[in-house]
Amino acid sequence: MHTVTLLTDFGLSDYFVGAIKGVMLELNASLQFVDITHLVPARDIRSGAFTLGQAYSYFPGGTIHLAVVDPGVGTARKGLVASAGGHYFVAPDNGLISRVLEREPEATVYEVRADHYFRKPVSTTFHGRDIFAPVAAWVSRDIPLHQFGPPLAKPVRLPPPVLQRVKDNLIQAEILAVDQFGNLITSLRPEDVGDQPCKILAAQREISQFRRTFGEGTAGELFVVPGSAGYFEIVVRDGSAARELGLAAGKAIGVVLG
Amino acid sequence: MHTVTLLTDFGLSDYFVGAIKGVMLELNASLQFVDITHLVPARDIRSGAFTLGQAYSYFPGGTIHLAVVDPGVGTARKGLVASAGGHYFVAPDNGLISRVLEREPEATVYEVRADHYFRKPVSTTFHGRDIFAPVAAWVSRDIPLHQFGPPLAKPVRLPPPVLQRVKDNLIQAEILAVDQFGNLITSLRPEDVGDQPCKILAAQREISQFRRTFGEGTAGELFVVPGSAGYFEIVVRDGSAARELGLAAGKAIGVVLG
Amino acid sequence: MHTVTLLTDFGLSDYFVGAIKGVMLELNASLQFVDITHLVPARDIRSGAFTLGQAYSYFPGGTIHLAVVDPGVGTARKGLVASAGGHYFVAPDNGLISRVLEREPEATVYEVRADHYFRKPVSTTFHGRDIFAPVAAWVSRDIPLHQFGPPLAKPVRLPPPVLQRVKDNLIQAEILAVDQFGNLITSLRPEDVGDQPCKILAAQREISQFRRTFGEGTAGELFVVPGSAGYFEIVVRDGSAARELGLAAGKAIGVVLG
Repeated sequence: MHTVTLLTDFGLSDYFVGAIKGVMLELNASLQFVDITHLVPARDIRSGAFTLGQAYSYFPGGTIHLAVVDPGVGTARKGLVASAGGHYFVAPDNGLISRVLEREPEATVYEVRADHYFRKPVSTTFHGRDIFAPVAAWVSRDIPLHQFGPPLAKPVRLPPPVLQRVKDNLIQAEILAVDQFGNLITSLRPEDVGDQPCKILAAQREISQFRRTFGEGTAGELFVVPGSAGYFEIVVRDGSAARELGLAAGKAIGVVLG
Repeated sequence: MHTVTLLTDFGLSDYFVGAIKGVMLELNASLQFVDITHLVPARDIRSGAFTLGQAYSYFPGGTIHLAVVDPGVGTARKGLVASAGGHYFVAPDNGLISRVLEREPEATVYEVRADHYFRKPVSTTFHGRDIFAPVAAWVSRDIPLHQFGPPLAKPVRLPPPVLQRVKDNLIQAEILAVDQFGNLITSLRPEDVGDQPCKILAAQREISQFRRTFGEGTAGELFVVPGSAGYFEIVVRDGSAARELGLAAGKAIGVVLG
Repeated sequence: MHTVTLLTDFGLSDYFVGAIKGVMLELNASLQFVDITHLVPARDIRSGAFTLGQAYSYFPGGTIHLAVVDPGVGTARKGLVASAGGHYFVAPDNGLISRVLEREPEATVYEVRADHYFRKPVSTTFHGRDIFAPVAAWVSRDIPLHQFGPPLAKPVRLPPPVLQRVKDNLIQAEILAVDQFGNLITSLRPEDVGDQPCKILAAQREISQFRRTFGEGTAGELFVVPGSAGYFEIVVRDGSAARELGLAAGKAIGVVLG
């Protein structure tokens, strides 16, 4: 039984997610679906790329990851199918698999062009249903990736997360994402600072308290924990750091070392 | 393995969806569930009917579609089980399968009355769990539909979508639905206007720009695309037409031909 | 095929739910997942306990229920695995399975301590992924529960729902939960009042109208129905009783008998 994960900005109210699952089941009735999320903010490729980059590696090898955040649907943007780290990816070629490619430099990527694998007629507005879902289903039926089209030498890549030493004792970093709890996931990893003391500058605040876990400190306290995604996270005990600091994904922060 | 799709207004916070899946698994452990949506607005049969009418046909023949938007639960309203277009439907008889019946005139519909298929005791407030879920599970175990009750000659039907030529060059249409992106799905299909030039009148605006896809035009521009549901959609490039025009499902629009 | 249900406060936007499913599939590829909910309010153990207590019993015997609402992750709070009423439960030891234990006094509960079943390295911030998900997967592979650790004699218990006769003709009760429709689920069951006439005092209102189902009465009317969870519910016809009365879970109500 093949697992197909889904990550989209389709939301959970419309027929879109049902349609793409139906299309896949029509081609392979024994698929197992796992929804990563359908709540990527509309057209937010960067947010989708972060979540996909976090989620895929927990799945068994051979899992097929179908990702559709596709503001350019129907335009000249290409579609792709990739093999990376033992996983398969089907997505528009717009940067959505950037974080995967950063982690998997040995990835092989093909353009999706062989339209006999598509659902016909192909609409100009829903390639998730007409192109990417059927291609994912055909991948699950062991069609070799090169059958879908020619190698894609330069898939579109988002700029990597901001993390740059701008002075001897100052690193410029950014907020990568905000999670469900309002925790601010930074681009700074514990290994970037090692054993040096440091503090984080964010929204005119200096945060020098580092703790092991969310449940330490006192209610309402602002501090930093080593997050489960491998990055430091700015959190508020029993609250939302995003609300407390008024920060969102993409915002700059500073890190003062020593 | 049988696929059962689910469409309800139960939301995603409560135990309701889990309960109906548990009840079905108890009767048939090898079901595959696909959630169409559980976010139909509370008690909005028309909205549920639209989404169900869009979603079902993508699934393989033999799929069972369980749909529960049921403000009349426990009252005199009937329950039904139907075979239509190679699919099965289990729902209250309140119009929820109207769009399916419009597309599948050969449908056969039965009233659900044979209470030995029900979960006991049957509550007065949750027939999704006590009647419709077990009936769907029994359908998956190949109980012939006529065993559930007598034919239902006149299932409740919602009025069809508004689409009417009111003058030689004027069609009255309506907004059928608003999707996740704020796109306004109209009741007008490309084949209704053919090759004639036309413009859409909506919320005191004249929209004469027709494009192939969402990614054309300039940011913020209002235009029309042939949507993936088979209808024209009013959209805003990188924005929400619903917000821009202040329109919602059920609102009238006009179409001027020539 | 084993069914694993999931109940968390992880929300539906992040990679968290995907990660825990991926971790489980890596250990047992033939699991069937059913999401109870991921929208438990952040850190609200009481709310999660209510929903879990309602949902589990509908599933077939042998179902594994993975529940993670875990504000104390990484602190001294324990983890547990339990067998209760023919079901399995994996959760932090913080009261989350309280409602299950109330209904299943014969439950056996073990502390989760055998770290060779954990995902390594174990983070301090995401035991759902690193401890509870792998333990649930190992349960599905028939590891006997006592292998995970020693018996847990006194699992943390929340106070039971408030339901107390404070005078001869007065019962003090509470709102247990508010559902998707704004219905107020009380701690009062039909068997608590039997055939006596009674009225409910809530938010300075006296509600003496009891009906069988939501569809009776007139639009906007406030009344009581026997809810599907086994408790009386305060409802508004075609509306939200929670909004009408301004009440939420945990609020006190009174019941006047006779």
